[in-house]
Amino acid sequence: MANNIRGEIDEKKYGSKSLSLSNTGFCYCTYDDEGNPNAMTAAWGGICCSSPPCVAVSLRKATYTYGSLLAKKAFTLNIPSENFIKEADYFGLVSGKKENKFAHTGLTAVKSDLVDAPYIKEFPINLECKIINILEIGLHTQFIGEVLDAKIDDTLQEKGDHPLIEQIKPLIFAPESRSYHVVGKQIAQAFAIGNDTNIK
Amino acid sequence: MANNIRGEIDEKKYGSKSLSLSNTGFCYCTYDDEGNPNAMTAAWGGICCSSPPCVAVSLRKATYTYGSLLAKKAFTLNIPSENFIKEADYFGLVSGKKENKFAHTGLTAVKSDLVDAPYIKEFPINLECKIINILEIGLHTQFIGEVLDAKIDDTLQEKGDHPLIEQIKPLIFAPESRSYHVVGKQIAQAFAIGNDTNIK
Repeated sequence: MANNIRGEIDEKKYGSKSLSLSNTGFCYCTYDDEGNPNAMTAAWGGICCSSPPCVAVSLRKATYTYGSLLAKKAFTLNIPSENFIKEADYFGLVSGKKENKFAHTGLTAVKSDLVDAPYIKEFPINLECKIINILEIGLHTQFIGEVLDAKIDDTLQEKGDHPLIEQIKPLIFAPESRSYHVVGKQIAQAFAIGNDTNIK
Repeated sequence: MANNIRGEIDEKKYGSKSLSLSNTGFCYCTYDDEGNPNAMTAAWGGICCSSPPCVAVSLRKATYTYGSLLAKKAFTLNIPSENFIKEADYFGLVSGKKENKFAHTGLTAVKSDLVDAPYIKEFPINLECKIINILEIGLHTQFIGEVLDAKIDDTLQEKGDHPLIEQIKPLIFAPESRSYHVVGKQIAQAFAIGNDTNIK
């Protein structure tokens, strides 16, 4: 058995709170009613189905992106690398109601051929998504998008293989400490280390 | 403007695929029909609402946990630290139909006072969740659980403050490369670095 890092001290209740400690920083792009591209960073989201491939994102109604999602039924999910930490944070700080975020950052909004949404050319990964489900949960509304295509920077993709996390360098966002972290070193192969029969 | 790491090379299509590159490794616990505790690791899940605090997890119907979730309408989300990498991986490799995973690993299943599900005593964070929504998406079914309480190892929590990601040491799972990584160093404060007005 692995060490019990809790020792002999009983855990205490933290209260009703959603904790996940680490999230990948994702930026979501939409067109507004006037056809202007907008981008926002949101912490609550990720893959929710493998087939059809789908991603979920939860947003507050107060965001400018919320209205665009309802109107366009489409968005793109864009993964920033460490290089774009300022842009990713800015996208979460400022509302598209007040500023043209693409103009401010100088990033390039490319119109998707598949859905009515732009993607960020300079970010290494872009998923083009058609909204297939909307669920009102509470403060947040969850939008589920089917991924019609995933675009990956050619220079960062192994031929015929998966994109390398070490090359893409996605941002890890820790909500509780409001901090960004890099992905650290690989410590094990998944679906393998658990085969060790000497767990106890 | 940050460097364009894509350079002059156009991106190529990767196809219809859900990519997120990094996920936190979460272990979900349930009771089966006979009241036996079970645990599984699932990659697709995370926070989906702040108020009420809710987490989502997507599972295939083929999993043993799927039936338990339907029957009990409850689960716990448990965050393993690096110490428990073998157990976390094992929970994703083996079905609860075939093995008593708690007996095999020696971990302790504690019955929640709030929901009809056990949590893993040795893991530093446990969220006790009541299922409030079930959505059939495709290969995966998404279960949304309202977090009735979050338990955190006392020894790892700053007094009156948030749990420290550097102390909890959650596992980052990269689905494409099927690898586990540690959380790396903090590189910036969120909701701050984006205020730098010299992004361009």
